[in-house]
Amino acid sequence: MSDFSRLSINTATTKNISLADAVRLYSDAGLQSIGVWRDRVEEAGLDKAARLISDAGLTVSSLCRGGFLTAADAAGQRNALEDNTRAIEEAATLGTHELILVVGGLPAAGPLAGDSAGTGAPTEGAKDVVAARARIADRLAELVPVAAEHNVRLVLEALHPMYAADRALLSTLGQALDLAAPFPAETVGVVVDTFHVWWDPQLEEQIRRAGGEGRLASYQVCDWNLPIASDALLSRGYMGDGYIDFATIGKWVSDTGYAGPVEVEIFNRDIWDAPPAEVVETVKARYAEHVLPYL
Amino acid sequence: MSDFSRLSINTATTKNISLADAVRLYSDAGLQSIGVWRDRVEEAGLDKAARLISDAGLTVSSLCRGGFLTAADAAGQRNALEDNTRAIEEAATLGTHELILVVGGLPAAGPLAGDSAGTGAPTEGAKDVVAARARIADRLAELVPVAAEHNVRLVLEALHPMYAADRALLSTLGQALDLAAPFPAETVGVVVDTFHVWWDPQLEEQIRRAGGEGRLASYQVCDWNLPIASDALLSRGYMGDGYIDFATIGKWVSDTGYAGPVEVEIFNRDIWDAPPAEVVETVKARYAEHVLPYL
Repeated sequence: MSDFSRLSINTATTKNISLADAVRLYSDAGLQSIGVWRDRVEEAGLDKAARLISDAGLTVSSLCRGGFLTAADAAGQRNALEDNTRAIEEAATLGTHELILVVGGLPAAGPLAGDSAGTGAPTEGAKDVVAARARIADRLAELVPVAAEHNVRLVLEALHPMYAADRALLSTLGQALDLAAPFPAETVGVVVDTFHVWWDPQLEEQIRRAGGEGRLASYQVCDWNLPIASDALLSRGYMGDGYIDFATIGKWVSDTGYAGPVEVEIFNRDIWDAPPAEVVETVKARYAEHVLPYL
Repeated sequence: MSDFSRLSINTATTKNISLADAVRLYSDAGLQSIGVWRDRVEEAGLDKAARLISDAGLTVSSLCRGGFLTAADAAGQRNALEDNTRAIEEAATLGTHELILVVGGLPAAGPLAGDSAGTGAPTEGAKDVVAARARIADRLAELVPVAAEHNVRLVLEALHPMYAADRALLSTLGQALDLAAPFPAETVGVVVDTFHVWWDPQLEEQIRRAGGEGRLASYQVCDWNLPIASDALLSRGYMGDGYIDFATIGKWVSDTGYAGPVEVEIFNRDIWDAPPAEVVETVKARYAEHVLPYL
């Protein structure tokens, strides 16, 4: 019998069901924690969401997600602060220490892209990657005291470089650690998501660094499938279906002493369309085969 | 009147025409150099290809491409050596010093993927990125004396990380320079291709390093378009159509003292289907607007 005590599933993996259904499903499957996407919290209402989860005896491994910090205009920057302050409060209410941040891509010509990819190319100034990254650092500095006050950690997520333009100008774990460096490790951390970072030639060294600095806040696993899906966001697969060497990366993570939850977050149309109970069983089987032996 | 003396177009940009037609077209457009893909050389025959190009008064900015060095079996490794030796001889015959190398992805379960994406996921051992990268370094060491003998430079191309699994486990300019480090700069160089590296947080520093080490062998430009094309290889666009800040990257490249050709290599179905003369005019116009002012 495999030990599923560290396995957590993110609600985004079973996107089509409510938070109440996800909580019941994961709990019935013997899991002890759940990763929560904010859309499910909003639907349920924050206090009810917190109650649903704690009544089922689950803990929240992370809340996804805050971020989108690259706006160049005052209104966009104010919106980012307000939205992230709400996200911090939600994390605190849900009893999780870890709030995942997706920092945002290049500011589009129009309003920030948010959840939908930008349409058309941005204006010349809006292509300035260096300036956009400086704004990310500025917004982070403003959010750190808010997070500290709520005992929530801002967890920087490096996204695969194929999302740099429209979603996250934070592309490597090393860059995330550089961005985190000015702030206390209990308030700014990083997540290792295999899908986003598996290719990185500096991965071993930067995972070791993250552990050494006490910033390794979350380990998320799913596979890199090919071909890339027509909606590139949905290219993730079950562990074992793609190209990622979970044995090696799992060992690097474990060698840091990381002993927290291992969260499975898969965006994939076929998986979303499958019966949720079947999805959870497959996640458990793949975790037992490809991930757990190397932790 | 813009100065097109440094502009080179790669035959892959006008994929549907013969080498003879490309030579005539680029030459009539006032260009002085041409980037050559090996498929066009093979079609024309090597000696005839060399003659066609020199008779038109063009020089070859680079030959694309050798590489695919990750095979784990003896036969695959022998094939890689033979094919790359041929590519080196072709580069020498064509009178170019720069042979671009795409190093290859994870070895698939079956024969090496070559030009078509691998089908299905590889076996467990074949997912070992660290071991595959070590084999790349081993093959490179074997090829360096062959290249030196022919006065050809092996030019390592970092490809966008979205191609790491099936095409190139060399994903950043810094990694390319690390791989090149044991060898003389006149025999192993690197290329900066904006499409592949624009997102890299270490880009400025690594371009400076490439220049300082005398390894900056080629500057290639095209844009990063969204959404990613259904065939991810074909996501490239004309400069100005996507998200890349050519002003900033062009300045970083120029600051190293690089004064060589600027090669436009675009894989894009719509561009391939357009009239080639129109494509060349558009390339010139976009080069004049987005690239030349910052060189």
